[in-house]
Amino acid sequence: MINIKEDEKLNIKNHSCAHLMAQAVKHLYPEAKFWVGPVIEEGFYYDIDLGDNTLTEEDLPRIEKEMKKIAKDGKRIIRHEISKKEALEQFKDDPYKLDLINRMDEDETVISCYSQGDFTDLCRGPHVESVKELKNFKLLKVSGAYWKGDANNKMLQRIYGICFETPEELENHLKELEEAAQRDHRKIGKDLGIYMMSDLVGRGLPMYLPNGFTLWNLLENYIRNKELDRGYVHVQTPPLGNVELYKTSGHWDHYQESMFPKMEVEGEEFVLRPMNCPHHMVIYGNELHSYRDLPLRIAEIARDCRYEASGALKGIERVRTFCQNDSHIFCTLEQVESEFKGVVDLILECYKELGIHNYRFELSLRDPEDKVKYHPDDKMWDEAENMLREVLNDLKIDYVEKVGEAAFYGPKLDVQVRPAVGNEITLSTCQLDFCLPAKFDLTYVDADGEKKTPVVLHRAVFGSIDRFIAYYLEETKGALPVWLAPTQVKVIPVNPEYQGKYGEKITELLRKNNIRVELDNRNEKLGYRLREAQTKKIPYTLILGDQEKTDKTISYRLFGEKDTTTVSQKDFIKHIQKQIEEKK
Amino acid sequence: MINIKEDEKLNIKNHSCAHLMAQAVKHLYPEAKFWVGPVIEEGFYYDIDLGDNTLTEEDLPRIEKEMKKIAKDGKRIIRHEISKKEALEQFKDDPYKLDLINRMDEDETVISCYSQGDFTDLCRGPHVESVKELKNFKLLKVSGAYWKGDANNKMLQRIYGICFETPEELENHLKELEEAAQRDHRKIGKDLGIYMMSDLVGRGLPMYLPNGFTLWNLLENYIRNKELDRGYVHVQTPPLGNVELYKTSGHWDHYQESMFPKMEVEGEEFVLRPMNCPHHMVIYGNELHSYRDLPLRIAEIARDCRYEASGALKGIERVRTFCQNDSHIFCTLEQVESEFKGVVDLILECYKELGIHNYRFELSLRDPEDKVKYHPDDKMWDEAENMLREVLNDLKIDYVEKVGEAAFYGPKLDVQVRPAVGNEITLSTCQLDFCLPAKFDLTYVDADGEKKTPVVLHRAVFGSIDRFIAYYLEETKGALPVWLAPTQVKVIPVNPEYQGKYGEKITELLRKNNIRVELDNRNEKLGYRLREAQTKKIPYTLILGDQEKTDKTISYRLFGEKDTTTVSQKDFIKHIQKQIEEKK
Repeated sequence: MINIKEDEKLNIKNHSCAHLMAQAVKHLYPEAKFWVGPVIEEGFYYDIDLGDNTLTEEDLPRIEKEMKKIAKDGKRIIRHEISKKEALEQFKDDPYKLDLINRMDEDETVISCYSQGDFTDLCRGPHVESVKELKNFKLLKVSGAYWKGDANNKMLQRIYGICFETPEELENHLKELEEAAQRDHRKIGKDLGIYMMSDLVGRGLPMYLPNGFTLWNLLENYIRNKELDRGYVHVQTPPLGNVELYKTSGHWDHYQESMFPKMEVEGEEFVLRPMNCPHHMVIYGNELHSYRDLPLRIAEIARDCRYEASGALKGIERVRTFCQNDSHIFCTLEQVESEFKGVVDLILECYKELGIHNYRFELSLRDPEDKVKYHPDDKMWDEAENMLREVLNDLKIDYVEKVGEAAFYGPKLDVQVRPAVGNEITLSTCQLDFCLPAKFDLTYVDADGEKKTPVVLHRAVFGSIDRFIAYYLEETKGALPVWLAPTQVKVIPVNPEYQGKYGEKITELLRKNNIRVELDNRNEKLGYRLREAQTKKIPYTLILGDQEKTDKTISYRLFGEKDTTTVSQKDFIKHIQKQIEEKK
Repeated sequence: MINIKEDEKLNIKNHSCAHLMAQAVKHLYPEAKFWVGPVIEEGFYYDIDLGDNTLTEEDLPRIEKEMKKIAKDGKRIIRHEISKKEALEQFKDDPYKLDLINRMDEDETVISCYSQGDFTDLCRGPHVESVKELKNFKLLKVSGAYWKGDANNKMLQRIYGICFETPEELENHLKELEEAAQRDHRKIGKDLGIYMMSDLVGRGLPMYLPNGFTLWNLLENYIRNKELDRGYVHVQTPPLGNVELYKTSGHWDHYQESMFPKMEVEGEEFVLRPMNCPHHMVIYGNELHSYRDLPLRIAEIARDCRYEASGALKGIERVRTFCQNDSHIFCTLEQVESEFKGVVDLILECYKELGIHNYRFELSLRDPEDKVKYHPDDKMWDEAENMLREVLNDLKIDYVEKVGEAAFYGPKLDVQVRPAVGNEITLSTCQLDFCLPAKFDLTYVDADGEKKTPVVLHRAVFGSIDRFIAYYLEETKGALPVWLAPTQVKVIPVNPEYQGKYGEKITELLRKNNIRVELDNRNEKLGYRLREAQTKKIPYTLILGDQEKTDKTISYRLFGEKDTTTVSQKDFIKHIQKQIEEKK
């Protein structure tokens, strides 16, 4: 989707449209006072103090109507320049503008204002020449927003909108927004009964409902079996730890602002863990290791908790607790290349099997000029970075290099995807680490009898299971492949009175064959029941009439299709089991 | 094992033996000061201030020797009675005794002391007549103990011991202790690589190692599949919640002392959850329910965190974080009986399959006289209690009734087992609850169209997976059944040089048949490798010599047996797969 902020022309247009909206609001609510109205990636917004008034989506058409009226009037937009003193005088009754003016630099002697008809606003500009250029706009939503983002301050009304050059562009954009909303995992997650949120349980804490847990469990077993096949071992460690653990790892000093506050118990301080590396380091350190034991691939579907600002929370994509599909691979320097290759190979294999195609690789490297941020060992960095490049080139993988984006402890590879709404997210990652093992005094005895420090690869295929589900629901639009669908088959007797028993028999038969099946024997019209199965995006709908009952057959319809296929019971079971086995 | 505290004669003997030990310590460490020396289930202990001295197990024989010497001397034990004033004067140089005397009731005008030779101690008694009766004793261990159990106070030395009538009784008891120590899950857990603990990670926070996680995962899948067969649905909820959630449930007011301290984030207060009921209540409340939806059985392997005093922690039996095999069954009053029966049936089925025999049922009922503690609805209590009794009688289950032991919200059934060391624990539980659903305003629409409040059964088959593993390791002495053994087969070529390749081939073959197998091709003696496989309690050890290699056969030895059986590869696979399927 287009980034309004980065398109110079659209940026000016949207900024001007924010003023137009403010003018319309002032006409309708004369007591309105205005805070700031910036351009953002998705268009613009304005934060407005309406006293005790609270706007709802239903108020937006009235404001749009007033905006159209002003635009039609076609007033020119005129820039004035005044001194700070004059500005303070002119806006003396507006505490918001005074706050802005007072925060301006002392030497900013000239302050600009823009006027259009009866409306004047403090603004750096630039703006379009006349309000009549602002025709193709739409107000998108309204929400509350604390003044300056501080929950102790007054709640203002924030109205979002967007403006384009032509009506076609606006229409296309609104269509895209509508499609994105349909694809948004928050909508699909609700429709399919995947998860729920509750303020009483706490913001950012998802609760997976039966369908969601079925999906979760299938994905968890899927990735765990893949890992077992590749020689990983699995552990289970607690979602909290002693503060000393994070002091040892360095998280306490460098990552504390993303952590929940500590808890004191009997003089011992505990904290919810934001990452699992320290626990896995301690497990490695629990035994002596020889070079013969390496690589040691410790994996875990591990619960983490991070503090995220409530405004940043987003469905199950951005939450305050989640489970990483984490692993730490302990290896020798010589093994880094093959281990890295193994990780990339595993990622690609999973993506292929799961039908994920819209992703791109980013290789984050150090900035060689930055001697402060990066672990100071140029030789090691050069070797490591070249090693990663070679593996990617060998595998014929396209990637973008990001200089200065590496972590301080080593280079990393990220796989980026774009969700239905909002910024790109990282789905998979593989990070080299030359520092952490030493902090925990981890060693192995090499062939020459000497103690050496292992290298660690941090990696996650499904970054977190939560975020992966969010993305996968959007990628599939909720139409999950048969092997992952919480309900694989819906059995619908045409008339429960006549074929209800046959429906029960088929349901029982499928269940015995380990197929996740539901029977709909409700006394509702056939069309209603068929539509509901479609809404739930169930892969197979069985429609059982008298013919099927007599012939002992099954007629099925695939999700999204209209054709019906009739087969024997045995053939249907064989067919669907094959699909499941082949992960279709 | 015998409870010393409850046997009147042994109680007196052990109490006297504590004095004897104190006298011996005073001879060896003249600066010693004594706090309290009570009798406990396991014998006696005495808390002693030795200044800067710290005792180790190696000091105990010297103290025992001195005790023997005093006992042989045969001084009579004489009781004196003195006034509080006299006591304060007599013990004026001993701050510990002064503390005890000052805490005695004002009207306790007479204080008793016991003297034996050169040693006098403040004591209520009674004691044996002479120290010569104290011959058959043993000092068991020594540990640090804070004065009054407060970590801010001085650390005292606590010496544990036990005393019997006859040398045979003492010997038998020490043998039992030795057996219990061998069976202790903390020893087996370490030997088999099940879990580890680390002070750096935090006390009471177990970390499951690869073998432990394999066992965990098998048990988790086992119980989850049993639940699925019985119509349960599974959810996944976060291990923390808003404090408001626990205010609603009542845990915040009644259970806070067992909870970790709260964490404040952006004005929202979170707390680690001690139980899962509130989360499941919110999930039930997420939808409207009709009587047709009931019973609704919501289950979860759910992470909880509870504050336990560090002194109470014990391996993975008593920890600060654990996962309950939890479920909440929402049903109508009429369904309680069949649901309760279903739970008991499930518990018995699991115990039978897992070979658990040493357990007993306890039915906790209200005290009808106690109108304060118990939810005041005599009719409902009577009905519920009779219902539970009837189900247990129908199932021909022996049980003990415990009047006044019910929770305030309803009667419950517990299954009690005894671990190798320490007090009985609850392995499974089923609790009726007539209160919690109302606190969350939960309802269902009944056949008559009226809104009614469902009843809830809280139940856990494997109370917590952690505690269950602890108990099961002790019950099986670590010799897990084939289907649960982390490593099912150890392949040992007689001489890796000659049969090593054949060993690799067999290992690969078994792995492909989903058997958990390890190859031992190390250049170590056969006897050494066989002994190690026995130590790890691996069910099947394959011994592959030239004969097996030539004949393409397998010779196997079962854990703990000496006989070797030779079969074809195919027959071995068939045999072990059958065992696994039959949960042997």
